[in-house]
Amino acid sequence: MLIRPAVPADYDALWAILEPVIRGGETYALPRDMGRDDALTYWAGPDRKTFVAEIEGRIVGSYYLRANQAGGGGHVANCGYMTAPGQGGRGVGGALCDHSLAQACADGFRAIQFNFVVSTNDGAVRLWRAKGFDVVGRLPGAFDHPRLGFIDALTMFRPL
Amino acid sequence: MLIRPAVPADYDALWAILEPVIRGGETYALPRDMGRDDALTYWAGPDRKTFVAEIEGRIVGSYYLRANQAGGGGHVANCGYMTAPGQGGRGVGGALCDHSLAQACADGFRAIQFNFVVSTNDGAVRLWRAKGFDVVGRLPGAFDHPRLGFIDALTMFRPL
Repeated sequence: MLIRPAVPADYDALWAILEPVIRGGETYALPRDMGRDDALTYWAGPDRKTFVAEIEGRIVGSYYLRANQAGGGGHVANCGYMTAPGQGGRGVGGALCDHSLAQACADGFRAIQFNFVVSTNDGAVRLWRAKGFDVVGRLPGAFDHPRLGFIDALTMFRPL
Repeated sequence: MLIRPAVPADYDALWAILEPVIRGGETYALPRDMGRDDALTYWAGPDRKTFVAEIEGRIVGSYYLRANQAGGGGHVANCGYMTAPGQGGRGVGGALCDHSLAQACADGFRAIQFNFVVSTNDGAVRLWRAKGFDVVGRLPGAFDHPRLGFIDALTMFRPL
């Protein structure tokens, strides 16, 4: 697996990853009718670095890395990760996370924070725990899940 | 005390409140060199409602109210509050908070979340607790305080 910075030529592949996740609305707090341009700005806008994972020339996942807050909060990074449809179970998420930990360190961040991990997203919660993230906050009923209704969201945090 | 929507004619007074808080950098995770236009967009931009508190025609405080997340997180509001220099101890913060609770309710929100309360901001933490907010998260060392170094930030939450 090759993980490299995203370039505009990747945007069709990125949108093919983002669209089903956004439309499904089960894991990200994004407008379910979000359009391509807004989604690509969210994922790959100028305020963040965006990487893609490739296997044999095919993009199988992506993540972004940015400062979570400004000013006195600027030493904590925030990341978002997505795996392409049909690419689950190949270690893509774990490889992206490992890459983001090294990248955040190289960029001088002292920690990574996930602000809003949907509590029913078991695979993600398990993976982040395995990568050293702790649950440092629980937001009661903060996510309106399309099938499950109001459920908790988690804040997860890992010092670097 | 009159609490009413902010209008552009209030922006000089708002900036006089925002500037010392931003320059001090002890309570908000904002760039300490943030300029007036960026600060007013942060506080009174089109993605939020902004209110000011007046006593005898003088603006003594302000708050904003917005959705904290989009999509499945859109039912939780986020607010920020500031009291004008020299106006502490007059109940301005409490009155703003009460107004925001009613306003968030009227706007259909189901809860208010504060993402990043600097843990050494004792007056604020005490006031939010008195207004029914619970600490639901603690972000270790997430704020670089200009005098105290790396200290915790709190996530506080109140159902409506």
